[in-house]
Order: sequence, then C-alpha cells, then structure tokens
Amino acid sequence: MGAIRTAILGASGYTGAELVRLLSVVPEYRLVALSADRKAGQGMGAVFPHLSHVDLPTLARIEEIDFGAVDHVFCALPHATTQGVIKGLPDSVRIVDLSADFRLRDPADYERWYGGAHTATDLQKSAVYGLPEFYRDDIAAARLVASTGCYVATGVTPLVPLVEQGLIDTDDIVVDAKSGVSGAGRAAKEGTLFAEVSEGFHAYGVGSHRHTAEYDQELSKAAGRPVEVTFTPHLIPQNRGILATIYVKGEAEAIHAALAARFEPEPFVDVLPLGALPQTRHVRGSNYQRIGVVPDRRAGRAILVSVLDNLVKGASGQAIQNANIMHGLPETTGLLQQPLFP
Amino acid sequence: MGAIRTAILGASGYTGAELVRLLSVVPEYRLVALSADRKAGQGMGAVFPHLSHVDLPTLARIEEIDFGAVDHVFCALPHATTQGVIKGLPDSVRIVDLSADFRLRDPADYERWYGGAHTATDLQKSAVYGLPEFYRDDIAAARLVASTGCYVATGVTPLVPLVEQGLIDTDDIVVDAKSGVSGAGRAAKEGTLFAEVSEGFHAYGVGSHRHTAEYDQELSKAAGRPVEVTFTPHLIPQNRGILATIYVKGEAEAIHAALAARFEPEPFVDVLPLGALPQTRHVRGSNYQRIGVVPDRRAGRAILVSVLDNLVKGASGQAIQNANIMHGLPETTGLLQQPLFP
Amino acid sequence: MGAIRTAILGASGYTGAELVRLLSVVPEYRLVALSADRKAGQGMGAVFPHLSHVDLPTLARIEEIDFGAVDHVFCALPHATTQGVIKGLPDSVRIVDLSADFRLRDPADYERWYGGAHTATDLQKSAVYGLPEFYRDDIAAARLVASTGCYVATGVTPLVPLVEQGLIDTDDIVVDAKSGVSGAGRAAKEGTLFAEVSEGFHAYGVGSHRHTAEYDQELSKAAGRPVEVTFTPHLIPQNRGILATIYVKGEAEAIHAALAARFEPEPFVDVLPLGALPQTRHVRGSNYQRIGVVPDRRAGRAILVSVLDNLVKGASGQAIQNANIMHGLPETTGLLQQPLFP
Amino acid sequence: MGAIRTAILGASGYTGAELVRLLSVVPEYRLVALSADRKAGQGMGAVFPHLSHVDLPTLARIEEIDFGAVDHVFCALPHATTQGVIKGLPDSVRIVDLSADFRLRDPADYERWYGGAHTATDLQKSAVYGLPEFYRDDIAAARLVASTGCYVATGVTPLVPLVEQGLIDTDDIVVDAKSGVSGAGRAAKEGTLFAEVSEGFHAYGVGSHRHTAEYDQELSKAAGRPVEVTFTPHLIPQNRGILATIYVKGEAEAIHAALAARFEPEPFVDVLPLGALPQTRHVRGSNYQRIGVVPDRRAGRAILVSVLDNLVKGASGQAIQNANIMHGLPETTGLLQQPLFP
Repeated sequence: MGAIRTAILGASGYTGAELVRLLSVVPEYRLVALSADRKAGQGMGAVFPHLSHVDLPTLARIEEIDFGAVDHVFCALPHATTQGVIKGLPDSVRIVDLSADFRLRDPADYERWYGGAHTATDLQKSAVYGLPEFYRDDIAAARLVASTGCYVATGVTPLVPLVEQGLIDTDDIVVDAKSGVSGAGRAAKEGTLFAEVSEGFHAYGVGSHRHTAEYDQELSKAAGRPVEVTFTPHLIPQNRGILATIYVKGEAEAIHAALAARFEPEPFVDVLPLGALPQTRHVRGSNYQRIGVVPDRRAGRAILVSVLDNLVKGASGQAIQNANIMHGLPETTGLLQQPLFP
Repeated sequence: MGAIRTAILGASGYTGAELVRLLSVVPEYRLVALSADRKAGQGMGAVFPHLSHVDLPTLARIEEIDFGAVDHVFCALPHATTQGVIKGLPDSVRIVDLSADFRLRDPADYERWYGGAHTATDLQKSAVYGLPEFYRDDIAAARLVASTGCYVATGVTPLVPLVEQGLIDTDDIVVDAKSGVSGAGRAAKEGTLFAEVSEGFHAYGVGSHRHTAEYDQELSKAAGRPVEVTFTPHLIPQNRGILATIYVKGEAEAIHAALAARFEPEPFVDVLPLGALPQTRHVRGSNYQRIGVVPDRRAGRAILVSVLDNLVKGASGQAIQNANIMHGLPETTGLLQQPLFP
Repeated sequence: MGAIRTAILGASGYTGAELVRLLSVVPEYRLVALSADRKAGQGMGAVFPHLSHVDLPTLARIEEIDFGAVDHVFCALPHATTQGVIKGLPDSVRIVDLSADFRLRDPADYERWYGGAHTATDLQKSAVYGLPEFYRDDIAAARLVASTGCYVATGVTPLVPLVEQGLIDTDDIVVDAKSGVSGAGRAAKEGTLFAEVSEGFHAYGVGSHRHTAEYDQELSKAAGRPVEVTFTPHLIPQNRGILATIYVKGEAEAIHAALAARFEPEPFVDVLPLGALPQTRHVRGSNYQRIGVVPDRRAGRAILVSVLDNLVKGASGQAIQNANIMHGLPETTGLLQQPLFP
Repeated sequence: MGAIRTAILGASGYTGAELVRLLSVVPEYRLVALSADRKAGQGMGAVFPHLSHVDLPTLARIEEIDFGAVDHVFCALPHATTQGVIKGLPDSVRIVDLSADFRLRDPADYERWYGGAHTATDLQKSAVYGLPEFYRDDIAAARLVASTGCYVATGVTPLVPLVEQGLIDTDDIVVDAKSGVSGAGRAAKEGTLFAEVSEGFHAYGVGSHRHTAEYDQELSKAAGRPVEVTFTPHLIPQNRGILATIYVKGEAEAIHAALAARFEPEPFVDVLPLGALPQTRHVRGSNYQRIGVVPDRRAGRAILVSVLDNLVKGASGQAIQNANIMHGLPETTGLLQQPLFP
C-alpha cells in the first residue's frame, strides 16, 4: 500500500500547522493538499515560517482541491462552517474532523449549545466520537470521526472509567480546567494579545462553556443516566498545555487502582503513582496524557489532575491517532516524539 | 506626631522589598532600620537594584538594630525563626508579622500543621489575626498583628460572610487556588527557575497545604462549628497574582447581594456585578482585591472568583494596612497606587 | 491656582491608560475629559478594568469635548491623524503630543520617513522637542511639546552629550535596541498575539525604522554636522521595558565621566558606576532611566546600555514630566512611584 | 552493524536531557549508560519527568560505567571537570564533548580565558572543533570532537565565509547576541529564578564573555591574521533560542550571495532571501539555523541576523550531528524533527 494521500483543510490555523509538523516527517502519510481560503496561493512557509524548509503543496481554496486524488481529510475548520464542507466531500474520502460540529450525538443538544440547527444531521448520526481510548473499534470502521477536543479529552478520559464503575458520586463532579493561549487560535483579537495575556490569569465562560455539553454526553453515557458536571475554564499565560483539577467524592485508592488498570495498555495515557502530580510542561509537544490521583485530607474525597498538550493530544495528535486507527496503521505512527522540555 | 520610626526585618526577601517600595514614598513612615542577616553590611540597592536610587539604611543584622529608637516593626522573616525574634523585641515596639507563626490561635493546630511546638505561646495568644476587613477593632488595639497570607486572604475574605450568614453549604467548599511564582520567595531552588516554571503549570501540596489550617480556623469561627474545606494550590507562570476559583452550594444571587453589601464600605475589596469575573492582571502592584460571583448552570450552585496581588494585598500591602490601623492613620495611607497594566 | 483641567485624547490605548494611571492619584491634575472615538459612551473601567475603581469621565468623541474648559491636552492619538486634531484645538490649551507627528523639525524629513506631506507645518515649526533633559527651557515656554518616543529617549539621551563633547566617533554609532510588546499598542494584530510573541525573539524594521530619523536629527544637531546611526529594533517577550545596547568608538572612562557629570542633577536619569549594567525590570512602571558604560576589551571602544520603561519614561511619564515643566510644577510631580519588582 | 552503544555523561543537565530526548527515538544509537554523580541511583524520570515514560538506564556515577561496553560518549559535564574525565576514558570510545574544555586550540588562550592551565593538553591538540559545516572531514576522522557552543555557532557560522572571502572589514565586527534562559543551565541560582528573569532583559559579561575567545580563534583562522570582535551577550525571558544581530561593513548583496551559495548544500543552515529576518521561535526544538541579511540604510554596511535553538543546534543537536559524521551515519540521523511552534 502506498502512502495515504492526505488533505488538510484549514492549514493556516494552529491545529492545521500542527498536523503538518507531525505528518511531514511520517512516510505513511503524504500531504497532497492544504487549504486556507484567505491565504490561498501562498506557500505554507509564508504563513508559518517554522515550516518554510518543508516541501509542501501551495495553500489552495477548498474548491480547488481534487478530492478524487485524496484518501484522507483532516478538517481543521471553524465550528459551523465545517458542516457544509464535510457534506460536500465525496464518499471515497475518510475524514477526521477537529471541530465540534460532529461531536454531539443529539441534534437537540447541538442546537441548544451552539445556537443553531445542525445542517448535516445524517452525517452527525454516523459520526464516531474520536476518543481512541474508548471508541477504538468504532473509529476503525468509521468514515467520519469527530476528534475529541482539548478540554474534554483532559477531563473525560479519567472520569469515564470512574463513572462506569460507580466509583464516584456523579452529582458532585467539579472540573477546574486551565488552558494555554494557543487554544484560542490564531485570529487577531485584543483578548489574546501578549500584553493582555501575559503576567495574568482569569476564568472565563464560567458555568456556560460549550465543551460542558461533551462532558455531559460522555459521562451520562457512562453512567446510564443524566450526569451534569461543573466545568470552569481558565486562560493561563503559556502557549501549550491544559491541566484539569477534578474534585470528586470517592476513595482515592480505589480510583487510582481503577485508572491504573484501565489505562495500563494505552500507549499515550499514563497514570502516575498515587499521590504524584503531573505538570503540563512535561507533555509539551507530545501526544502523552498524564493523570495523577491524590486523596483529599477529608475522607471519601479525591482530587485528580490530568494534563495534555492542547494542540497535540488535545487536537492534532489525537486526530492523527484516530486516522491511524481508521487506516489500520500502528496507532502510534508519527506520534512518538518525546516532550520538549524546557 | 512625627513619622513612625519603622524597621523591616527580613528586607532581602520579596515581601521586605515590597514594604520598602511602598513605604519609601510615604512620609508617615520613616525607615530607620532594615535587617538581612546574610547580606548585612550591603546597601539595599545592591540586593534590589530597583531600589538603588532610594536613600535607605544599610542592611544590618537584627542584633545591631537599636529597637529603642524604633516605633514599629514589620517582620518578614521565614516561618519558625520568627517566633524567637519577636519574643526578643522590647514591649515598646508594635509589630506586624508577615509570617504564619502567629496566625493560628490554637497551639495544637500550629503543632499539627507546622510539625513542632510553638515557642512563644503567650505571644500567640495575644496576637490578632491581621485581616483588616474582619478584625479592624482588634487590630487597632493590638501590639502584635499576624498579617493574613496571600492564599488565605484570597479565599477567606469572600467566604466568611457567606458562612456567617448561612448562605452556603459548609460541607462542600472547594477552593482551587492559583498563584504566581513570587509567592515562592527569592531563595534559589531548582523548582522556581525560569526554565522550570515558564510555559507550564501544575498543582502542588494537594490536600495538605499548610494554609488550609487558616481556612479551617476562620471558617469554623464564622460557622460556630468545625468547617473543613478542600484547598488546592497551583503554580502559574507569572510573577504576581493569586486567583481562587471557589465552588459552593448556594444561590448565586443571594451570595452576590451579601458580598456586595458586606464589602461596599471597604476601600480595597471590590465586588464586581453579578456574572462579571476579575483578572489578576488588573490588580497587579496594588492593594485591591476583586471578587466575582457567577451562577453555575446547575441550580443551587455558585462559583466565586477572587483575585489579589500576592505581594501587596496578600502580604506587604496588607501589612501596611494593618499598621495604618494600629497607628490611627487613614487606612489607605501609602496604598492608593493604581494597578500596573499591562 | 486650581488643579490643571486635563483632557486625554486617545484614552483607550496603552499610553492613554498609563496617563490615567499616573494622573488619577495626583491632585495637581484633574481629568475632565477622556476621548476614544470608537469606544465613546463607555466607561474607562469597561475598556481598562484595572481602572474600574477610579472615578473618571465617560469616554467621549473628541468633538464632544468642551475645550474651553480644558487647560491642558495630552494627545495620545495615532501618528498622522494627530496633526488635524491638534490643528483644531483652541489657542488656550497647551498640549503635550505623544505621537511622532511633531518631533521632526524639517518637513522634508517628515515627508521622507512618514510617506506624506505634513499638514500642519506651522505648528510643526513652533513645536518643541519634548526631551526634558535637553530642552527644559524651551518646553517651559512652549504651547505644543512633541514628547520624545521610547526608542529615541533610550538611546539619544546618553549619546547627545558624547557627541556634543566630541567623545565618540560619529561615523560608527550602532544602536541595538530591544523593546517589550506593549510598545506595539493595543490594536489586535496576529503579530502581537501571545502565542506569536512569547518564547521567541526577533529583529524588525532593520535599517529602516522611522525612529531612526529622530536619532539623526538630535545627533546631527549635537554634532553640528550630519550624523547617521545604525539602529535596529527587536521585539522581546515581555510587556514593558526598552534596552539599547550602544556600540561606540571612544574611551569608556571619559564617556562615563561625562555622562555621570551631565546627568548628576537630573531626577530621572541615573548613570551607574563604570562597568555596572542596568536591567529593564529594575525601572518597570517608573519614570527612571538608567545608563551603564562598559569598556570593550578592544581599546578605544565602549559599550553603553540604557534602559527605561517604554510606557513611562518612554511615553506617558515623559509626557507628564514635560507638562510639569510647562505648568511650572515641580518636575517630579506624580512621577515618584518606585519601580515594581518582581 | 549494531546500534552504537552510547553513554551520556552529565545526564541531569539540560543538554544531557536533550540528548536523551533526541536519541531515545533513534534506533542507530542505543543508550547504555547515563551518568549524574549527585543523582546516581535515581531514574531519569525522577530527574526529568518529561522522560519518565522512556525505558532508560538508571543514573550512575561515572566510575560505575563499563566503558568497555561503550562505543560512543557524549560528555555534557561542566567546564574544567571535563578534562580529567575525558583523559580517563579508554581509547576505544569516541567522544563528543559539549563543554568548552577542548574548543580552544592554543593552551595559552585557554589559560587566559578560563583562568587556569589546561590539564590535558595532548588531548586538546588532537581534538577537532565540532562545527560540522566547516570541519566535516576532520570530524569524521576524530576520536574527540569539541562540539561548538551556542553563542559561537550562532555568529561564527555566518561570519567565517565572509571573512574567508574578504567581504567584510574584520576590524569592525559587532555581535550583539541574545539568549534564552536554558543556556544558563539547571543549577539553582537567584539570577535565573523565574521572578528575576521574566518580564525583564539585560546584558551581561559585556566585553569579557569567554565565548569571545572562540570567535577570535575561528575568525583569525579564516582571515589568516588576528581578528577581534566585539561580542555582547544578553539574557532574554524565554527558554530556548539564541539570536545574534551582527553589524558588519560590507555590501549586503555580496554578503547574501556568498552565504546563500556557501550554505546551499547544508541540511541545517538556511539562508533567507535578502532582506528577510529569522525568528528564534521558528527553529524551537529543531536543529535548524537560519540566517538573514539586510542592507543598512548607510551604503557599505550590512546587518546579519542568525538564529538557532541553543539546546539543539547550539548544543545537543550539534553534538549528535558531529557523532553522525564520526560514525558514518547520514548526517541528519535523529535530527529531522520539525520546529515546535507555537
């Protein structure tokens, strides 16, 4: 079998560039098309100088791409516009979508959280949720995978086994999440200017962030009944990294044992010894996720800390992991770089 | 009345330098002695070049200071060594201590959290807890004030009125706190090197941080029965600023109304409109504390966010505010600088 | 005499906010009007939350301001648009302009560097260059002062005395300057996003930066013949601070002695001992400028390092210093805050 | 041929960890021993948690290593102590040394710049200077290669061809260099604490930095007569990256053409189009070096900007490139990761 002919739609954003960074040194994938509507005609090196020494297709408009010569599409377009684009792709291409458009199973949920009706509900029904540690078999068979986002992968991954096994009280889950700035994307906004972000810290979207919907969906499925979590995101002055501090009611030792057993076979999820705590900087640039469990001083309560790189295991690395599964490649293909520290 | 003759013990640390920064432009205080045992004989400008243009006493050893010519001592020494030093001061000086040595009322609590018996229990009994918004009258009359620390002032200030008024469930208080690096002090440690701290984020002391004891003490007093909180500190890659995200069970509207009313007369505590969120960068370098209240999407739950500058309202500014009260000065003396942004 | 009734035009930018930060605690100035065309109608606290606790006029459009009730205008508008606005102000107001519009004496120079004819050449002729250490008497008598910008104040201040006294070779002056990001302003641009600026460093405008023109103007005037310098700006990942490393041919000892003598009476310019080097962080938030002189190992060559806070001594503090001189106030009025470190 | 049995001496420093990061995913090298005297007995994951998922030899004392089972040594020990260690290695191992101990050809130079006599002058004579772009053939044949350091590789690489070809005036070379903090190593020092380094900038070692000696050595060799440069290092608040702004007298077009031609065959040195400027962030984590050339506005003067990652092309990547040459491997083995941005 030859290399997988691969197109990246939305190559001028950070997740698009991160897909190029990871895939351009992997022979199993061949980048045959890169789209970026507003920057069509430019070279990738003009848009992302860190990639200027790589031989890559010129940025094109989506309609200029010959999808008949494409086996796989990574779609890194903004939410909402994604639906129409994916609807228009030929059946012959398989797709990993990095947007939120196909992550919610229920069209009513989508409409409630995203403020408008879904325009491709058939595709939505057939899409598989792209969290490899839980949906591996479905992903292998899917045409369209909705790759899990950064905030959700960070917290849902440790919580699902605990809910499934009834180890925690599902009424009192608090997820206090903190993300680096690259998660906000490359669009020029006052709020993400260096002078506005550095040397400071704040919470945002408290009680109302859209990614809460995915927590509810996945934890309710795991519990077999409706579960709602409290989820608070914060913006921290660093580029990469998400850390979720998760407060649960349950026994730390049992929680730790369950997670250690559940993720032992996983190549990218690492459960630290009981009481040890992970740091975002130790997974920077890599596809690894690390989880720590600590008992609270109050009996029957535990604190989990989960970290990953929002652009890799939280976005582009996750997407490649999904694609590897879809195409029968070893799941770690292209994803074994070590973290970059310091 | 002449200027208050003031000594700063421990002037070579960040809180010592911050006291000098704030006091050196205030005529009501006159700096007559600065101590720094290991740097005795040096000028303050050699130790802190940002103060090199200020005319200041040479750094001295504590035993070289003539406390007969001192009216007021700010003690910014490390925990534990503080007890002996303050015990040795003449009765004629009044003292604001910035360490944790005199903050816990119960010697047994002290011994449990700090791992050794208190060596000045008489002083401990007479010391007043230095949280001006709650102990103003006691502070005015005190000889020794144990100025509240940064993590505690951030979270205890909004919580005490809620507990006093029975507006929240005292069994389920979660304080997720995040601090800038200056809180770790100026001692050279691998863990606070730039390359170890920048571009990363982590939790520490989970379930066991010593400042938890002060949360318990103040909230139990407010409740009239034992209260224990879950408190998790994190280290964030910025110099100044603490933010506490506090999860409580209670009605956000009632909580907001109670806090707005309680702190309306306070010069330094600002309660934002319901739903608005404060940022650490907006109080940088100032003595202001800002508190936001947001309803969770789940009825009966609320999220509070409280911010302050750990070196000012969390340490040296708080100490000066206490001293102003002790000496009958306007409480805002020397503390009205605007925040520095960006 | 009552307080100076003061208007700030362009209050929604960083230099405007910095003027408010500094002036709002100074009784000699009373802020009676703040303009921000696109944000007219909003409170300053909505635009700059760090100032939300200050009682300030609502942001207005320039044409809404009654300049008959204004004594002094600080004009912090963008280059080029400034000319028209200042032309329209009544003769009764005195003005400190923070833009580059009136800094170049020669209309031909202006046209060459700024790419268009000056539209207020009469005003240009009467404007005084606002570098207090060199133009104090002219500033005192001026109606319009063109306050010196950050890059120029950093390097021109130490160089002028050396050129005047013939202590350095005027053919071989290299100014390698580095600036924090706040100098780029608050406009949302991809290039100043946190993720684009942090953890990296670059030069820009090499050989062609507009501020070079002011170096030429001031050094040529000092030399009595045309002088051209090599000037290279760099963008560094921090908010505040400019540092210029200046390479000259001359004797370090003589250079140091000349600068120390020349600036000894100046309240805000500090020449360090020979061989000592200043750091930007030690002047952060203050109006101080610090200069170090070091001999190169090659005889007859010296290296100067000059630092200041680009938003204070490089912009708003400098402007206030000029205004103090214009209005006969002590020159340090409102400018004696200590630097904020760390 | 089997994998090269490789030992890293000094694995507990940043360059040691970086060697592990790069080599642990390369089958051509097999890590058989890691030394760290003070941390002997610990796992590498305890010292560098970002490597905790990698299967590695336990840290050992140097004397515990069986060098009979080692083919290649990377020596990442501190300056001075290196000499004795390398002297004690058996002849059967080939060595790339990352310290400065064997970089200076002349024992007198070593003594002058490093303040003590060299204790292994025989080895010093036989060592090859490890700058692959200039000493490739000698490196291939060498037993001991003294890998070029970060500050020198940044500036010497573009300068040598210009001096060799007589394209610039060798009397007036100014190298204004700026480095990230990781170059200062992992030892706990007050001066590299986060709170001391962030949000600030300074020059150090002006006129006297030891790396100046290597500039002189290599440029004198290129010129065929003594050349001395002015070299000023600065510390910038970021982890990785060195940028040198180099001021020369010469024609920019000729300089650019010469460099473009000279480095066109090189896999890791990239000369940008005339007038374009490189940024440190665009080579982060990679072995690439990028060079830009810009004409000054003054005829006959040019400005060069050269960037690399101090821990990769400036240290561990350079060392691996040298080792690849020594062992007849493709020179890019293990070094083709893309830069990490943002």
